Amino acid sequence: MASNFFGQLFRITTFGESHGTAIGVVIDGCPALIPLTVEEINSALKLRRPGNTPYTSPRKEEDTVEILSGIFEGKTTGAPIALLIRNQDADSSSYTAIKDVYRPGHANFTYLEKYGIFDYRGGGRSSARETAARVAAGVVAKKFLISLGIECCAFVDAIGGIQSTPQNLKNLKMLRAKTYESPLFCPDKQATNKMIKAIDLVKEEGDSLGGILACVCHLPVGLGDPVYSKLEALLASAMLSIPATKGFEIGSGFAAAAMKGSEHNDSFDLDKKGNVHPATNVAGGTLGGISTGAPLFFRVAFKPTSSIKKPQKTVSLSKKKVPFEPSPSSRHDPCVAIRAVPVIEAMAALVLADCVLMQRCGKQC
Amino acid sequence: MASNFFGQLFRITTFGESHGTAIGVVIDGCPALIPLTVEEINSALKLRRPGNTPYTSPRKEEDTVEILSGIFEGKTTGAPIALLIRNQDADSSSYTAIKDVYRPGHANFTYLEKYGIFDYRGGGRSSARETAARVAAGVVAKKFLISLGIECCAFVDAIGGIQSTPQNLKNLKMLRAKTYESPLFCPDKQATNKMIKAIDLVKEEGDSLGGILACVCHLPVGLGDPVYSKLEALLASAMLSIPATKGFEIGSGFAAAAMKGSEHNDSFDLDKKGNVHPATNVAGGTLGGISTGAPLFFRVAFKPTSSIKKPQKTVSLSKKKVPFEPSPSSRHDPCVAIRAVPVIEAMAALVLADCVLMQRCGKQC
Amino acid sequence: MASNFFGQLFRITTFGESHGTAIGVVIDGCPALIPLTVEEINSALKLRRPGNTPYTSPRKEEDTVEILSGIFEGKTTGAPIALLIRNQDADSSSYTAIKDVYRPGHANFTYLEKYGIFDYRGGGRSSARETAARVAAGVVAKKFLISLGIECCAFVDAIGGIQSTPQNLKNLKMLRAKTYESPLFCPDKQATNKMIKAIDLVKEEGDSLGGILACVCHLPVGLGDPVYSKLEALLASAMLSIPATKGFEIGSGFAAAAMKGSEHNDSFDLDKKGNVHPATNVAGGTLGGISTGAPLFFRVAFKPTSSIKKPQKTVSLSKKKVPFEPSPSSRHDPCVAIRAVPVIEAMAALVLADCVLMQRCGKQC
Amino acid sequence: MASNFFGQLFRITTFGESHGTAIGVVIDGCPALIPLTVEEINSALKLRRPGNTPYTSPRKEEDTVEILSGIFEGKTTGAPIALLIRNQDADSSSYTAIKDVYRPGHANFTYLEKYGIFDYRGGGRSSARETAARVAAGVVAKKFLISLGIECCAFVDAIGGIQSTPQNLKNLKMLRAKTYESPLFCPDKQATNKMIKAIDLVKEEGDSLGGILACVCHLPVGLGDPVYSKLEALLASAMLSIPATKGFEIGSGFAAAAMKGSEHNDSFDLDKKGNVHPATNVAGGTLGGISTGAPLFFRVAFKPTSSIKKPQKTVSLSKKKVPFEPSPSSRHDPCVAIRAVPVIEAMAALVLADCVLMQRCGKQC
Repeated sequence: MASNFFGQLFRITTFGESHGTAIGVVIDGCPALIPLTVEEINSALKLRRPGNTPYTSPRKEEDTVEILSGIFEGKTTGAPIALLIRNQDADSSSYTAIKDVYRPGHANFTYLEKYGIFDYRGGGRSSARETAARVAAGVVAKKFLISLGIECCAFVDAIGGIQSTPQNLKNLKMLRAKTYESPLFCPDKQATNKMIKAIDLVKEEGDSLGGILACVCHLPVGLGDPVYSKLEALLASAMLSIPATKGFEIGSGFAAAAMKGSEHNDSFDLDKKGNVHPATNVAGGTLGGISTGAPLFFRVAFKPTSSIKKPQKTVSLSKKKVPFEPSPSSRHDPCVAIRAVPVIEAMAALVLADCVLMQRCGKQC
Repeated sequence: MASNFFGQLFRITTFGESHGTAIGVVIDGCPALIPLTVEEINSALKLRRPGNTPYTSPRKEEDTVEILSGIFEGKTTGAPIALLIRNQDADSSSYTAIKDVYRPGHANFTYLEKYGIFDYRGGGRSSARETAARVAAGVVAKKFLISLGIECCAFVDAIGGIQSTPQNLKNLKMLRAKTYESPLFCPDKQATNKMIKAIDLVKEEGDSLGGILACVCHLPVGLGDPVYSKLEALLASAMLSIPATKGFEIGSGFAAAAMKGSEHNDSFDLDKKGNVHPATNVAGGTLGGISTGAPLFFRVAFKPTSSIKKPQKTVSLSKKKVPFEPSPSSRHDPCVAIRAVPVIEAMAALVLADCVLMQRCGKQC
Repeated sequence: MASNFFGQLFRITTFGESHGTAIGVVIDGCPALIPLTVEEINSALKLRRPGNTPYTSPRKEEDTVEILSGIFEGKTTGAPIALLIRNQDADSSSYTAIKDVYRPGHANFTYLEKYGIFDYRGGGRSSARETAARVAAGVVAKKFLISLGIECCAFVDAIGGIQSTPQNLKNLKMLRAKTYESPLFCPDKQATNKMIKAIDLVKEEGDSLGGILACVCHLPVGLGDPVYSKLEALLASAMLSIPATKGFEIGSGFAAAAMKGSEHNDSFDLDKKGNVHPATNVAGGTLGGISTGAPLFFRVAFKPTSSIKKPQKTVSLSKKKVPFEPSPSSRHDPCVAIRAVPVIEAMAALVLADCVLMQRCGKQC
Repeated sequence: MASNFFGQLFRITTFGESHGTAIGVVIDGCPALIPLTVEEINSALKLRRPGNTPYTSPRKEEDTVEILSGIFEGKTTGAPIALLIRNQDADSSSYTAIKDVYRPGHANFTYLEKYGIFDYRGGGRSSARETAARVAAGVVAKKFLISLGIECCAFVDAIGGIQSTPQNLKNLKMLRAKTYESPLFCPDKQATNKMIKAIDLVKEEGDSLGGILACVCHLPVGLGDPVYSKLEALLASAMLSIPATKGFEIGSGFAAAAMKGSEHNDSFDLDKKGNVHPATNVAGGTLGGISTGAPLFFRVAFKPTSSIKKPQKTVSLSKKKVPFEPSPSSRHDPCVAIRAVPVIEAMAALVLADCVLMQRCGKQC
């Protein structure tokens, strides 16, 4: 069934396999007259690109995008914007060895059961490589949002159990600066150093680490629809659609379950201009599924990378118990959460762009 | 924008306000020939009904359903099934006092900003009363699923920081029995007793507690679609659409972020019939967004009830700072999580029914 | 599969069978602050109601609506509006006789093949009675549109081959007055008289007639989306979803196929205010699927009523060739097109309300 | 708003402008294990390609497709199939002259009003060139359908008022052979000759002709959903989404409006195997919006090509009345209907593929 799309009004449809010809995305529903250049998209792709630091996979992808449609004289036209990223360094030879076994922590078992066929090269469609298309599309959403004063910043909050300190959510500029100073995209320097050590250790062991990403968005009041399209429901769906994610929480999140109502409720207050706003922000930026205007804050849990070099047990496609020993030359991230930072930010932007268009339908005018 | 629906193929559309004429649901896409009676729906509604135990709101709702369409000679026909629940004990007088202030932790601020109008009686459309319609629809989904051997059981996992012990996920019958023995729907007796004490305490204080619900489903391999309709993405969206929810996690969830790959990966094994299955189930029942056949396990965090009797601060609609003191006669749950147990189960059933229909579209036949 | 809904942003979901408990509709996505009363809906239902004139079925339906939700203090709130119409005069005894045969021109054959079950009473879900729900929903759409200066008028253009003369499309008020003076909703008096004679004749014969309805809408430029959501594509889908329809054409329609480009192209001109507009309107109000601002004009073909009193041949459900002789007491319209006038108008309003919301998403602002 | 997609379960999303970099399509929801080659798609594109005969535009497009994703070892995998067609002969110089005027019969007026920007080169997104992407996607749908014994054949039924004789709808093989023998895709030889003369005449005059296409499909009983997704509603929407279409009719169509019920009703009969089927097929293959198993038959009206060489009147973008004289070197079809034959067939296949998947959701199994 058609399900490779995300969003209702501002919608992306992605395609492509990890080691196929190309991956790409069609962005349908972007309003007209938004300025957009190919360089803006390429810059964003660089951040997600593997091979940048010792903390990500050594696979080298150029990841330069071609804009196939939807832009005229440097601006969006309202027509669908198709973006194409060709696969360059698709060395699938290392996958031949493991194509006949069910890979622990991977999707070839479930895909084969569901479809009866699986493009095993690099994980095919189930690969995190698909997220490059999301990042490219996210740039278009961000360009639309920035014109409305809406901005997001994602960052690494925890890795391997090392938790960073809480950040000031009101100053996005500073938060972004601190985030991009860190090779791990973690705005807390001390935590970054501890995380680097932990990563170095598991790399040596041939093992991997999980992590938690956080994201803050500055946005106006009124985004998100009641009931089934609550802002947090749309975000949760967006985040859990990213490979390797295991959880989502908004504001106080799971900690809220141990709080009392008198601790959790945010009072309302008046600002200097006489506008109403929540005095505190335990809620994390929504009430009744609709943004309050306070910073939106949510966190996403990632499991440790499934591809590790330690020996494991599994079963072959011919239904025999076999040991599972990945090729020593296989290339993987020690912690997938790190490279997911721009993906989280892109998905948040896509959700918010959709909500802005939804919001335009709400009131009589 | 139209957003009061859930599901793509097996779809519900709900309507109704807390203190309006009625609430209800249209179930569109239920396959034909499923047996269904009004008694089955009424039984399910009883579980969610307020006024049952000292641990839920004293509001008395008959909550009996009328089947308006879609059933012929005791069976579904493929036509939409409309279910109507009239509001009986809709005493909205206690709301008149608070209609002119922004209620802390409530949605009247965001609704008023978004729509310019708000049905303040009992929270209107933002009330948890809407979930009765979900529970009714969930019965239809469950009847469809049971014919395919698919079953879910939700239960209280933690309240106010009191965590229950892990349950055996393989025996749903026993889990359900233990769950329904507890007045709090918590299968752990000792934990139940501690939770009751904690609830009694906050009731006295006029305060409230948060909680965590868990849900287990037995289902075949192959449910859930890749990328944006991953089973966990659909579940996350379903769960975060329930009022008062703050977080969702599947399997290891946020704990996965502190684990190593070698700890997290489930090996594959063969059962006695020679079928492949995960030997362990850290993942919680999915790989690549598709069910593995192992029990699906997820948890949902609920904030403490926003309606408390303690004095708070707020702002009036006429933009003045005012104290907020709810009427002493107002009727609320000390912990909303408890009554959400059948809601979680219903939403899980609706997601799975949708996935079963989606699955039928995947393979050539 | 869920398919009992129409529209994307301004969406209706209908339910109910001809001789079941009730029929109804949920309108989801109507903007807030639109004034709406139950009387407005009841007035519209009266026009569609059977038993009004000798030219429609003698079945007597009160067809009064109950508003179940979505209205607060006389206005829409943005929440779903549920409308309920109970079936009053549902005498299904006359259907018992024919429940065991495939009815010529009817849907029980195809429903039984598709679903394995059929609510045979009065045609069940396949009955034109479902269109009462559309008419009720259409009132809500019209109230929204009128606030934007958008209006539609549907009328009988031809019955049984008797073609009325072309109407002035610029004066909707006069067109509507002439339409409602005619017992057949045909603005051409002479044609009305001829049609009445033709209808009287087939009634005597126990036979029925087909007809063509036309509809004019006054609307601004810019409604309709390119490619797959062209205004004419949305209208065609809306019209062919009405029972007994066989064709749709916009503007010149099928006659365009015999014209030359030089005859068909509308030149552009300037009005007194210097605004651009088509000088003529052969196109019928759209170019490239988007409204030009000229009156929208389309026609819909209806087959003759399938329920006739003449003897026919058919096959029984037990697969025997049998004669088909409807009960002499069965109640049907001699020409279904007549009662479809408000249905056409309602569906046009629903399409345009959807397009107005779609249009709000198109430009950057 | 996102609207460049067609279909619900078997869905296409198209992109690209006439004289941009490329056009293309993403097919999402195609079941796995369907064999597919690039040659099959290229063959289909050849039929639609301009420059083939004197009766179509002299623009030369190679129109060879690149499969970017979704195929593995020669078969579909369930993943989205992206097809790319690069624009080769995109000479947009002839459009510069007319970029500053509203083109009669064209969409630049409505696009500019809607979006405030228009890619004027070759009509941009509003160009019929977009239909090449539909034809490419249609091949994939056809490959899926053929495995189920479902086939369609579209042909020219009338051009410039010259009506061909009715065809035998039961022998698709013969109908297709006769269709492809004709340079105009008209299975009636005598009519073809008359049409050719009429086309030659208007070409000399610098004018154009309209036409009617017909399409027959062989399919099983049960396709199409009740009410809003009636098979004819889906087809009407599909057909009216094709540029230059003005009308759609199924079976008896507009002629039904002049018939009596006793003439129009198809009796049911038994075949030799004891299966029920309509004895005649006035209905054109559906009852209640669901296929009867009899050949589906529908017709689509096309307006004459809007681009003609005769002088016309119009208004400039700077709001001055100006003459409109297209460059003598501009390249256009004298009758767009001809090249639309494969487009009609592709859209029919896409509708039916969607209906097959919808049908799988209908019954309990």
